[in-house]
Amino acid sequence: MIKIGIVGGTGYTGVELLRILATHPHAQLTAITSRKEDGVPVSQMYPSLRGRVDLCFSSPDKADLNQCDVVFFATPHGVAMAQAPELLANGVKVIDLAADFRMQDVAQFEKWYGMEHSCKDLLSEAVYGLPELNREQIKKARLIGNPGCYPTTMQLGFAPLLKAGLIDADRLIADCKSGVSGAGRKAEIGILFSETSDSFKAYGVAGHRHTPETIEQLQRISAEKVDLLFTPHLVPMIRGMHSTLYAQLKDSAMALTNEELQKLFEDAYRDEAFVDVMPFGSHPETRSTRASNILRIALHRPSNGRTVVILVVQDNLVKGASGQAVQCMNLMFGLDETTGLNHVPINP
Amino acid sequence: MIKIGIVGGTGYTGVELLRILATHPHAQLTAITSRKEDGVPVSQMYPSLRGRVDLCFSSPDKADLNQCDVVFFATPHGVAMAQAPELLANGVKVIDLAADFRMQDVAQFEKWYGMEHSCKDLLSEAVYGLPELNREQIKKARLIGNPGCYPTTMQLGFAPLLKAGLIDADRLIADCKSGVSGAGRKAEIGILFSETSDSFKAYGVAGHRHTPETIEQLQRISAEKVDLLFTPHLVPMIRGMHSTLYAQLKDSAMALTNEELQKLFEDAYRDEAFVDVMPFGSHPETRSTRASNILRIALHRPSNGRTVVILVVQDNLVKGASGQAVQCMNLMFGLDETTGLNHVPINP
Amino acid sequence: MIKIGIVGGTGYTGVELLRILATHPHAQLTAITSRKEDGVPVSQMYPSLRGRVDLCFSSPDKADLNQCDVVFFATPHGVAMAQAPELLANGVKVIDLAADFRMQDVAQFEKWYGMEHSCKDLLSEAVYGLPELNREQIKKARLIGNPGCYPTTMQLGFAPLLKAGLIDADRLIADCKSGVSGAGRKAEIGILFSETSDSFKAYGVAGHRHTPETIEQLQRISAEKVDLLFTPHLVPMIRGMHSTLYAQLKDSAMALTNEELQKLFEDAYRDEAFVDVMPFGSHPETRSTRASNILRIALHRPSNGRTVVILVVQDNLVKGASGQAVQCMNLMFGLDETTGLNHVPINP
Amino acid sequence: MIKIGIVGGTGYTGVELLRILATHPHAQLTAITSRKEDGVPVSQMYPSLRGRVDLCFSSPDKADLNQCDVVFFATPHGVAMAQAPELLANGVKVIDLAADFRMQDVAQFEKWYGMEHSCKDLLSEAVYGLPELNREQIKKARLIGNPGCYPTTMQLGFAPLLKAGLIDADRLIADCKSGVSGAGRKAEIGILFSETSDSFKAYGVAGHRHTPETIEQLQRISAEKVDLLFTPHLVPMIRGMHSTLYAQLKDSAMALTNEELQKLFEDAYRDEAFVDVMPFGSHPETRSTRASNILRIALHRPSNGRTVVILVVQDNLVKGASGQAVQCMNLMFGLDETTGLNHVPINP
Repeated sequence: MIKIGIVGGTGYTGVELLRILATHPHAQLTAITSRKEDGVPVSQMYPSLRGRVDLCFSSPDKADLNQCDVVFFATPHGVAMAQAPELLANGVKVIDLAADFRMQDVAQFEKWYGMEHSCKDLLSEAVYGLPELNREQIKKARLIGNPGCYPTTMQLGFAPLLKAGLIDADRLIADCKSGVSGAGRKAEIGILFSETSDSFKAYGVAGHRHTPETIEQLQRISAEKVDLLFTPHLVPMIRGMHSTLYAQLKDSAMALTNEELQKLFEDAYRDEAFVDVMPFGSHPETRSTRASNILRIALHRPSNGRTVVILVVQDNLVKGASGQAVQCMNLMFGLDETTGLNHVPINP
Repeated sequence: MIKIGIVGGTGYTGVELLRILATHPHAQLTAITSRKEDGVPVSQMYPSLRGRVDLCFSSPDKADLNQCDVVFFATPHGVAMAQAPELLANGVKVIDLAADFRMQDVAQFEKWYGMEHSCKDLLSEAVYGLPELNREQIKKARLIGNPGCYPTTMQLGFAPLLKAGLIDADRLIADCKSGVSGAGRKAEIGILFSETSDSFKAYGVAGHRHTPETIEQLQRISAEKVDLLFTPHLVPMIRGMHSTLYAQLKDSAMALTNEELQKLFEDAYRDEAFVDVMPFGSHPETRSTRASNILRIALHRPSNGRTVVILVVQDNLVKGASGQAVQCMNLMFGLDETTGLNHVPINP
Repeated sequence: MIKIGIVGGTGYTGVELLRILATHPHAQLTAITSRKEDGVPVSQMYPSLRGRVDLCFSSPDKADLNQCDVVFFATPHGVAMAQAPELLANGVKVIDLAADFRMQDVAQFEKWYGMEHSCKDLLSEAVYGLPELNREQIKKARLIGNPGCYPTTMQLGFAPLLKAGLIDADRLIADCKSGVSGAGRKAEIGILFSETSDSFKAYGVAGHRHTPETIEQLQRISAEKVDLLFTPHLVPMIRGMHSTLYAQLKDSAMALTNEELQKLFEDAYRDEAFVDVMPFGSHPETRSTRASNILRIALHRPSNGRTVVILVVQDNLVKGASGQAVQCMNLMFGLDETTGLNHVPINP
Repeated sequence: MIKIGIVGGTGYTGVELLRILATHPHAQLTAITSRKEDGVPVSQMYPSLRGRVDLCFSSPDKADLNQCDVVFFATPHGVAMAQAPELLANGVKVIDLAADFRMQDVAQFEKWYGMEHSCKDLLSEAVYGLPELNREQIKKARLIGNPGCYPTTMQLGFAPLLKAGLIDADRLIADCKSGVSGAGRKAEIGILFSETSDSFKAYGVAGHRHTPETIEQLQRISAEKVDLLFTPHLVPMIRGMHSTLYAQLKDSAMALTNEELQKLFEDAYRDEAFVDVMPFGSHPETRSTRASNILRIALHRPSNGRTVVILVVQDNLVKGASGQAVQCMNLMFGLDETTGLNHVPINP
């Protein structure tokens, strides 16, 4: 059994880790910290876990995370970088669901997250936890920067085309839509039911933290300079993310048939348990991934055929966060990658 | 492996059966019928099942249900009664999720369902599939009438008090609220998004089919004449059911303390895997049961203490329908009752 | 023109007052206070009012409310009682949308609201602002305690039966359901979209502030001792309130026909512009009142006929709060009661 | 008073016309037809109109529409073209909310709507009913093709840039999102609450009828060849439309400052009562237009400044349909354009 610690288990990615790990056959939940909820049973705060998780939250001071095999950070940005060095020194693996170890470019990190990076030494060994693009490194990693929810969809959607050099790398447009749980479990007016229900809006159009993260990763697989216009929107639904990606085919690629385009994606993801390439022209719904680790992709090529429209859906809390983190953990501990992640999406 | 057939698998209870059975370790999905969708892959109609269910729908004429070990009917009322005799004669067990075998009182059935009962002979051996009240009979049954969603909450909520003879059996009030999926997957104006979202209403206040079903069952455990006022309401949510039950304590029971009341329920359900008696005074949310087979109960005794208010929540498609049916199947085939039903509720 | 001040205009009842008064032909918005938003244009906080309301919020210290003809308090409980004496002394009328002047029983107020009442002297002249039951007093009032949202539905639903002495006054049950906007515009986890959407729950079952308010008012019209069991619930919708009321007919009233029952209500509300008695057996939807000042009632008498079920719907922010307050204002200033309140409900 | 007929008043644009016209000071509702609901009071089908609209639906055969001053067609495509000639011959003006008279290009119409156009003669005099771009023609028109909901947002969003020749006219991208009411009031599985709530999807990505309509209109104001990639999506909300428009600045326009860009739009719409240009960088929410005829626009220019992102929101049933139709009617009858259209948006 893998002894598991969770730092900051009161948010949505924390409770989603608990949901997944509660039935993971090799997971032994050992400690879950929350300064504010010290001593409170997890199942009191989350009645959905009554009878399934017996732990109490404990103050970070009291929890002995050093005895864990792996610690997940489901915390605000900045927490993991402060605690990771000691844990790693004690032989504990670390998976950070926040942004501390996602970006190699410190300047970009500090600009977008408004804080100094206190743990630059570890960045070079930190591995970006997107298994479909980075599997071998994850297997050997001690320290994972788990991808952001939006970047997961953008990378898996653009990657096959970028790798093949078929599209203008500097004209990528991603029009993305997220459920409200992506904003976290915070006491803020802006995400109240009465403020978000029965309405729709864009936000952060001038710039969003997930842009530099995505560009950094896409640049690794593109021979040409990547540029990305990313527009996030808020959808009145709890879970779910839908990215509508627009890629301009190069003149030299205009002869590509739709069948060849489709095959490119099917080949890219043929062996992936958690990426489903749907038939050409499909319209995936976010609910077809609800509460599961699957991500679905469908291709379109409307109008004059110059623009490839890639539709990508996932559950932002699973493949977009906690499920992906467990997928990484499975790889890091030599387990089958799908262990504990076989949830069938909830429909309706 | 248990060879399983599903008749009428295109509705919500059908697809929920598929979701549950897809990861049930002893289930082998063998046939699923739909006259209209003959030849269509199940996963084409329900993309949430892509990669998880390989079957195609087949016309009832072609499907050889007689080779199954058990057949579930996820059909409109009246279908199971037509096909059950042949299946039973061939040694196939039958679990009907509709109303054909729920009520022993044929006159009541025919009045409320507006059809003649064509299979009265089998009624006497049909077992009402509520394991918490009927477990031993279910184990031996060949033919199950799976309870309605509302009746499950009303019975498990009132039963301990009625059995103990503490309340006026003829003054029961059940003010119940259901998510829209309870109305099924039908092309009807009244359950469109634009008709039901951001609104709330009662329906069927003058009389609802679940009243006679519930009274018949409650009468079996009550020494006194049962009468029930049942008011169903429609909530703008997909899944979930919340029943607010009002029971008047007899004068002779007014001395009962809240602790004794609480203990009565805890004792009644102590060994039940799928009934959770929450601390006295709790306010269970339907989402704490979402997509799982758990039903939660909480007790209140406001104001002058004469009325016990029992709050009961469940997922109407799981404990209120398909999960309960699989729970019955497990009992009928000698499996652990919880096999394949350990889903942790989805939150948020 | 009536010069109008609003204290605390940043909450939902405040912005709803603004929406209504923006097109009221006799209203002149003069001052709107918010300590926190001093100097901020109202339309910046509420873009829905761009081009419709030109005021800025001003700090309470700066706003000269004494020059107003009437001041509405859309504030937390306790604010109006502190400021009302000075305003009244300056000839300004006061309408409090909070609870400070709703209850004559100071002990009950202090018990349920957890604060000392600092303005007991004015209670005797304060008028409970429910026009349908209190019109003549409202016309002459200087100081109005505007009713709570739930109490409005419970009073208008039970009143005809209680006045006629037909029901057991001490066995009233009100099972009520409210949209989330009823909880106000507060930064609280419990009313986040991700916490309340796609779910349903009861709250405050052990006791709620609206119980003593309602009992005090109902007692005024009942010859017998009133007792009330009130169970509030939270519905995943923004606006709307649905009260399901259960009243037990006295033995002496069992001979009443349904037609007589219906006539009792139709007679009671025949001349009321904002109370709609629907045909016997109707199922009113909350959306049929959305964004309007109408309240609809429908009667049922199921099962053995002993219990009258009264369904009452309204928009909690209009007839349940700000619309009712404007209705009172119209009466206090000698205007037609419906002035500025002729909004047709929004459907769908 | 203007005598008004409505053909097909049972759908969402029909009932929205009724809501608006019920308080329009110059409107006299004279006839409303529905073959299926002949004789049924409008307020029985739509309780929101109880006490506000006294008409009954009448069969098209019985209704004497020729005595009306204007007839609105809130019908499926193809109905207006069959009845318009007779009405016009009798001096009745016609406003079609469907597509029959939107497009001058008959071949495109027949391709996208799958029917022959039976009334080609009238096309040349039909006026496209978008007042902000077409006001003078509307004033003189007898026959209006009222714009589609999506096209309204796309045209008003792209128009100032296209007119000024600042952007690549053949690389327009419109990523648009609509509430479910846009799909109409039809008994279809795909728009059930349980199918659309808590989910998000694109649809019609390969091609949508609103593309040729929009291109035809934009071409009229563009000196260069227009091409448009339009991707519609379905949002789990009742009303509201949000279009995210992407326009590529020409190299020659890259020197444009954001202030100049903003001024371009402010100048374009300065005198428009129903177009609100918000401050540069705003994020308009659909709810800020709910149930009103306002359309709001906000500009962004993220990243390298090459792409202008134009955010446009409206209520799809008002400015996107019935409100716009009444705006046209006002112009056609010499009324102030805003008559009867001063509804303040509903918030929350």
